[in-house]
Amino acid sequence: MTTKPNIPKGTRDFSPAEMVKRNYIFNTIRGVFHRFGFQQIETPSMENLSTLMGKYGEEGDKLLFKIQNSGDFCRDVTDEDLLSRNPLKLASKFCEKGLRYDLTVPFARYVVMHREELTLPFKRYQIQPVWRADRPQKGRYREFYQCDADVVGSDSLLNEVELTQMLDAVFSQFGIRVAIKMNNRKILSGIAEFIGEADKIIDITVAIDKLDKIGIDNVNAELAEKGVTPEAIAKLQPIIMLQGSNTEKLQELSRILADSEIGMRGVTECQYILGITDQLSLNNMVELDLTLARGLNYYTGAIFEVKALNAQMGSISGGGRYDNLTGVFGMGGLSGVGISFGADRIYDVLNQLGLYPAEVADTTKILFVNFGEKESMFALKAMQQLRQAGINVEIYPDCTKMKKQMSYANAKNIPYVAIIGEEELNQGKIMLKDMNTGQQQLLTTDEVLAQILRNTY
Amino acid sequence: MTTKPNIPKGTRDFSPAEMVKRNYIFNTIRGVFHRFGFQQIETPSMENLSTLMGKYGEEGDKLLFKIQNSGDFCRDVTDEDLLSRNPLKLASKFCEKGLRYDLTVPFARYVVMHREELTLPFKRYQIQPVWRADRPQKGRYREFYQCDADVVGSDSLLNEVELTQMLDAVFSQFGIRVAIKMNNRKILSGIAEFIGEADKIIDITVAIDKLDKIGIDNVNAELAEKGVTPEAIAKLQPIIMLQGSNTEKLQELSRILADSEIGMRGVTECQYILGITDQLSLNNMVELDLTLARGLNYYTGAIFEVKALNAQMGSISGGGRYDNLTGVFGMGGLSGVGISFGADRIYDVLNQLGLYPAEVADTTKILFVNFGEKESMFALKAMQQLRQAGINVEIYPDCTKMKKQMSYANAKNIPYVAIIGEEELNQGKIMLKDMNTGQQQLLTTDEVLAQILRNTY
Repeated sequence: MTTKPNIPKGTRDFSPAEMVKRNYIFNTIRGVFHRFGFQQIETPSMENLSTLMGKYGEEGDKLLFKIQNSGDFCRDVTDEDLLSRNPLKLASKFCEKGLRYDLTVPFARYVVMHREELTLPFKRYQIQPVWRADRPQKGRYREFYQCDADVVGSDSLLNEVELTQMLDAVFSQFGIRVAIKMNNRKILSGIAEFIGEADKIIDITVAIDKLDKIGIDNVNAELAEKGVTPEAIAKLQPIIMLQGSNTEKLQELSRILADSEIGMRGVTECQYILGITDQLSLNNMVELDLTLARGLNYYTGAIFEVKALNAQMGSISGGGRYDNLTGVFGMGGLSGVGISFGADRIYDVLNQLGLYPAEVADTTKILFVNFGEKESMFALKAMQQLRQAGINVEIYPDCTKMKKQMSYANAKNIPYVAIIGEEELNQGKIMLKDMNTGQQQLLTTDEVLAQILRNTY
Repeated sequence: MTTKPNIPKGTRDFSPAEMVKRNYIFNTIRGVFHRFGFQQIETPSMENLSTLMGKYGEEGDKLLFKIQNSGDFCRDVTDEDLLSRNPLKLASKFCEKGLRYDLTVPFARYVVMHREELTLPFKRYQIQPVWRADRPQKGRYREFYQCDADVVGSDSLLNEVELTQMLDAVFSQFGIRVAIKMNNRKILSGIAEFIGEADKIIDITVAIDKLDKIGIDNVNAELAEKGVTPEAIAKLQPIIMLQGSNTEKLQELSRILADSEIGMRGVTECQYILGITDQLSLNNMVELDLTLARGLNYYTGAIFEVKALNAQMGSISGGGRYDNLTGVFGMGGLSGVGISFGADRIYDVLNQLGLYPAEVADTTKILFVNFGEKESMFALKAMQQLRQAGINVEIYPDCTKMKKQMSYANAKNIPYVAIIGEEELNQGKIMLKDMNTGQQQLLTTDEVLAQILRNTY
């Protein structure tokens, strides 16, 4: 009666080697968040479905993982409802809770529930898994981590500046060369006004967002299909194809959007943000990209997206300014701006480019070989001293063949092996073997400590 | 149409102040795990119900959170089954997945699924949340973290020794004085043999495990109720009430259990473990406690439990040796031994005893006051330099009243405020105010950096 175990599709186990890399990613991002004054919160994995439903569109509702009420979950359901077999209706009776779908809605809920305790502006970050019942495919999982940093309660564009700096800092630390693309919802609105199709702004931005992938002809075809007039398309094309430096693009936009109040506000915002980031000489380029839209019904000001320059990968980070984060929970007037890092994609890019630092790989510094009771006792005391100095060491627990113990050290990528046989025991010393060079040195415990510290820092 | 948001009962939000403390706990535990050569893995939050069901007893099955299949979950269910309203049966049709109930079963599943990649002994740790549909009450949550370290694939008692050292190291670092209680399932079996009630071992251990709480008379009453003979009870009582040092208890047990092979093996194991831990002079006492049982059907050798000496709290850590971790998944012969830390209880104990280090509280070191565009620009450049040196700094994003900005610094517990007004700007300097002493110093950015580093390390 044994079952051959497996895990649900779209989910993953992470091995020690993978965890070390993932922690490197999370710790790097977390470090930057801290350096910019963001504070961590965590919210429960489960939220009430009333909190989640209706926040991600109809499609999103279907992708929520719902948790069945415990106990007699069908007690209060009528026969008629049961036999209706209506999945949405029955799910609403059987389930009160669902798994977190993103970090933004729980954050909004958090802000509303804890508003009395919060000092605004509130700079929070959150690194937690989210769940989506998406069809699993390469690079798309049903459980994955999001790493979000948001500021709520401040309209200042300095927040946008600092978020840009954070994007730059994170990818500089990873050694990933990126383009930080920026746009502004207000500019997009201005453009839609200018071409006389203000009411079609969503269709327009959805279409031009695809320019990179499908080319201008297909974009134009899609626009025509959505009922955008040929005149409007003709006016739009030169704008979204604008070439040149950020300054040149903004100059041209100032001319084009001169009559659109909202459009000019967007231009001014971009000028301000780019003016400052220029002076801060970031490592990566911030590039005005007028086709960037990213879930437009959500963003109201700046929009960000990051692409790796030398890797095959979609966007690895993104974000923007949104108004009224908490309005849906009855608390109006709070503007927010934030960015989100895609840990799984960054993981793949770092692998593709071979950018993991070497020291990320080894966790244990020294394996003590086990030659029996007396020798182990000596080893344990030496190990106690080394651990107190913060060095990671272990002893092979069983007194078995040397060869087996050495291959354990190899498999675990342990750089040093400490050998304490009868002779070493008599001298009260340790034979320290460097697994890379094969060199051996007979050392006191103090000397081993000094040697390891020297080679570590 | 706004909803007043709430979170599911038994779950919690963690504020920045709580997260800082929780991270301190997790990082301390993680550090000790690393120092002893344990490697981290993570498993999915959801497991197939076939992996989870039947592993935690009938009661446990009921406490599993089940996830409803997405899409048309009742398509293949007959009318008859629907109308049966049998929750267990219907749940098995509606749900294929459930949330992780502990870290042990997923770990066993992991070992079986990845056995080809693993080098044994495998020393893994795992720090992840688990979910139980328990009735929420004070100190009992439906989502909580477990921190487990286990070694599988080694029978050596050195593992037990090292786990004892780890318990000692973790609580020493926290500054919590504890008693590390140890027992051995083999001794308990020997005792049951000795009193002539070998087949009642579970009833016996369940009863004596309560000695602390209910006293000897009630223990004896419970034993009698379970059909243990008066003679057996009379023989048992002096054993479980044994006083004296570990050595004295073990000497007495050697005498009493001389005829029980399994009992004597347990005594020898304890002697070995205690013999070594004595020589390693731990900070906390390891104490042989013959009433300790902890889920006996599970453990097969050493059993551990940790209690804080100066706090009102149940056990804050525990563990033991178990055989055949993976047998239920068709992979026999693997013994394991592990410990688990209760992060929530440790959190409460550290609060009760006021043991959080002061530096845990502050995250941002300097708040730069915002006096306008030119001043901010100067601030941003100084901040860039400070951040490159690893210092956490932030600027108040809005140019608003000084008082508001200062109370933000206070609320966030930021120890320094940097003031750059017109005069400072002209001099290219920063007025650094120590928020504790009120002292102000006019410094260059380099001097600010040096000052902060001096006071931090």
